[in-house]
Amino acid sequence: MTRAALKPDTDVIEGVYLCTSLDLPDLFGPALAGQPGLRLYKPDDVPDPSRIRFALVWRPADNAFDAYPNIDLVQVIAAGVDGVLRNPSLPDGVVVTRVHDTEQATIMAGFAAWHVVWHHRHMGNYLDAQKSRTWDRTTIKTLRPPSEVTVGLLGYGLMGRTIARTVASMGFPVLAATRTEGNSDPGVTRVSGADAVKQVAAQSDILINILPLTGDTHDILNADLFAAMPSGAALIHLGRGPHLVEADLLEALDKGQIGGASLDVFRQEPLPSDHPFWTHPRIVITPHEASVTSPQAVTDALVRSIRELDAGERPTATVDKTTGY
Amino acid sequence: MTRAALKPDTDVIEGVYLCTSLDLPDLFGPALAGQPGLRLYKPDDVPDPSRIRFALVWRPADNAFDAYPNIDLVQVIAAGVDGVLRNPSLPDGVVVTRVHDTEQATIMAGFAAWHVVWHHRHMGNYLDAQKSRTWDRTTIKTLRPPSEVTVGLLGYGLMGRTIARTVASMGFPVLAATRTEGNSDPGVTRVSGADAVKQVAAQSDILINILPLTGDTHDILNADLFAAMPSGAALIHLGRGPHLVEADLLEALDKGQIGGASLDVFRQEPLPSDHPFWTHPRIVITPHEASVTSPQAVTDALVRSIRELDAGERPTATVDKTTGY
Repeated sequence: MTRAALKPDTDVIEGVYLCTSLDLPDLFGPALAGQPGLRLYKPDDVPDPSRIRFALVWRPADNAFDAYPNIDLVQVIAAGVDGVLRNPSLPDGVVVTRVHDTEQATIMAGFAAWHVVWHHRHMGNYLDAQKSRTWDRTTIKTLRPPSEVTVGLLGYGLMGRTIARTVASMGFPVLAATRTEGNSDPGVTRVSGADAVKQVAAQSDILINILPLTGDTHDILNADLFAAMPSGAALIHLGRGPHLVEADLLEALDKGQIGGASLDVFRQEPLPSDHPFWTHPRIVITPHEASVTSPQAVTDALVRSIRELDAGERPTATVDKTTGY
Repeated sequence: MTRAALKPDTDVIEGVYLCTSLDLPDLFGPALAGQPGLRLYKPDDVPDPSRIRFALVWRPADNAFDAYPNIDLVQVIAAGVDGVLRNPSLPDGVVVTRVHDTEQATIMAGFAAWHVVWHHRHMGNYLDAQKSRTWDRTTIKTLRPPSEVTVGLLGYGLMGRTIARTVASMGFPVLAATRTEGNSDPGVTRVSGADAVKQVAAQSDILINILPLTGDTHDILNADLFAAMPSGAALIHLGRGPHLVEADLLEALDKGQIGGASLDVFRQEPLPSDHPFWTHPRIVITPHEASVTSPQAVTDALVRSIRELDAGERPTATVDKTTGY
C-alpha cells in the first residue's frame, strides 16, 4: 500500500461501509466526520469503486468485497472478526483489523462481574424474596467464601485480562486458559497448551467464555466439557453463538451438572421466541449486549490502522488469519 | 491487663458470649474449639463471673456486661460496632475490638459491584425482557461509558478500599470521602475534610454508603444530600439502617432525583412486610446480607487481640470510641 500519510482535504482516502445488519453510516458517520482525510460512502453512492482503499464492516454480504479491487484494509467494528474472515469475497491479501478498545473491555468486565456474583451469591433469590416481601436471611449461610470459588476464563486477550482483574479483586482465584505462555496479573493463574481449556474448566466453579470463534473453538462448550467441570458449576457465555452446543447445555442443566448459566450469544440471533432457553429457570439471557464499542473508539482504530499501513507497518490491530483473532 | 501469654490447657483464659439475636456458641464454638487457651461460656454456664476476662459479642443486652467486673476486652463479631459502643453497661476502660477481615471485604466488593452494574446497565430490564421472551437490543444504545460515570464511596476503610479497587477495575472513576487525608489506589480520588461526604455525593452518579454508624453519620443519607446529587443518581446503601432517612429516599425516588436504590440495611430489621420499600419498582432489597465474616476470621481476630493485649500492646483492631470505628 503506497499511499501518502493522511492529509486533510487535498489527499482524501476513500472507503466504503459494508454491512447487512446495522446502519453503519448512521452509527459512525458523526465520529468519522471529524476525520477530513477520510471519506466513506454507502455502496450505492461510491463514485469510483477502484478508488476505494478500505472498508468499515460488520456482517458484510457474501459478495460485498467483489466490487472493490483496490481494498487494502478491512476494519471490523468490533473485537470479533469470525463473520468477516469467513466471507467468501474477502481478498486474500487484504489486512483485516479489529477493535482493541479498553472501554469496551471494562464494560465487558463489569458485565462479567455481575454474572459471577449473580451465580456466586444466588442474587436471584433476593429478587424473588423481595417480590413476596420475605426477609430471608438464609442465603448467606451457604455462601462459599470467594477464596474457595475458582473462576475460569476461556480467552485472555484484552477483554479476558480486564475481566480477570475485576474478578480477582473480588477475591476469587482466577484461572485463565491461553494458547500461549506469558505473564498474568496478580491473582490470575495462566494455563497454556493444547489442553488448557479442559484443564481450566475442570477446576472452575464459574466458567466465563470470551474466546474468539475459530475452527478450533467451534462447539467448544459441549457435553464433554460440562462433564469435566465441578458438579453444579456455572457457565457465563459471552463469546460467540457457535461455541455452545445448546442441547448439551440444556441436558447438563437438567442433570444439575451445570447449576446455572448466563448467555449473551446464541447460534441464532435474535433468539427464537420458542427457544427453551427463554423460560429455563436457571438461565439468564441477554441479547448480545455484554459490551459495545463506541463510534469514537472504532474511528480511532480505523485511523490508527490506516496511519500504520501508510507508514509501511503491519497495523497493531491486524488479525492473524491462521488463529482467527 | 497483666496476664500470661496464651498457653494451652494449664493457663486458660475465660470469656463469655453476649448476644441477644444470634446463637454465638453454635456459630463460633467449632472454630473456637481449635483454641485450647480460650474457654467461652454461655452466661448461664459461667462458673465464676470474676474470672471472665473477655466477651465475644453481638447486640448484647443493655445490662449484659454488669455481671463481669474483670472484662478487659470486648470482641465484636463484625466490622460495625455502633450497637456495642452504645451499650449502657459497657465499662469505660474496656478495649473494644472489631473484625478486619479481608475476605469479608472482598465479599462486600462483589456485592457492591453487582449493584453498581445493576444500576449502570439497567440489568433489571434484561430480566424483565427475558420473562416476556423479548430480544430487545435497545438497552445498550443508552449506555453511558463507565469512564463517564462517577462512583462515589462514603467510607474508605478496609471495605471501602476493596470496593474501590473493584469498581475502578470496571472502568468507573471512583471518588472516596474520607475523614483524613492519605493515599488512595489507582483510579480512586480521595476527598477529605468536613464537607467530603457532600462533595463526593454531588459528583456521584452512583453513590455507595459503607460508613460506620456514629453520631456524625446518623441520618446522613437525607433530602439535602439527595438534592445535591446529580439528577437520577443511584444509591447503594450497605452501611447501617439509621444512616438513611427513609421518607426522604422515597420522596427523592418519586421525584426522579434518585433514579434507583439498593438497600441492604434498614432502620427496622426485619423490614416490616408493609414497608413501602418492598414494592417500590426502583428499589432492590437484600436482608442485611451484603457481607459476612467467617467464624474462623472472628476467632483469628479474637486470638490476635488477646495476644496483643497480653503483650502490653493496644490491639490493632481497637475501636476508637471517639470516632466510633
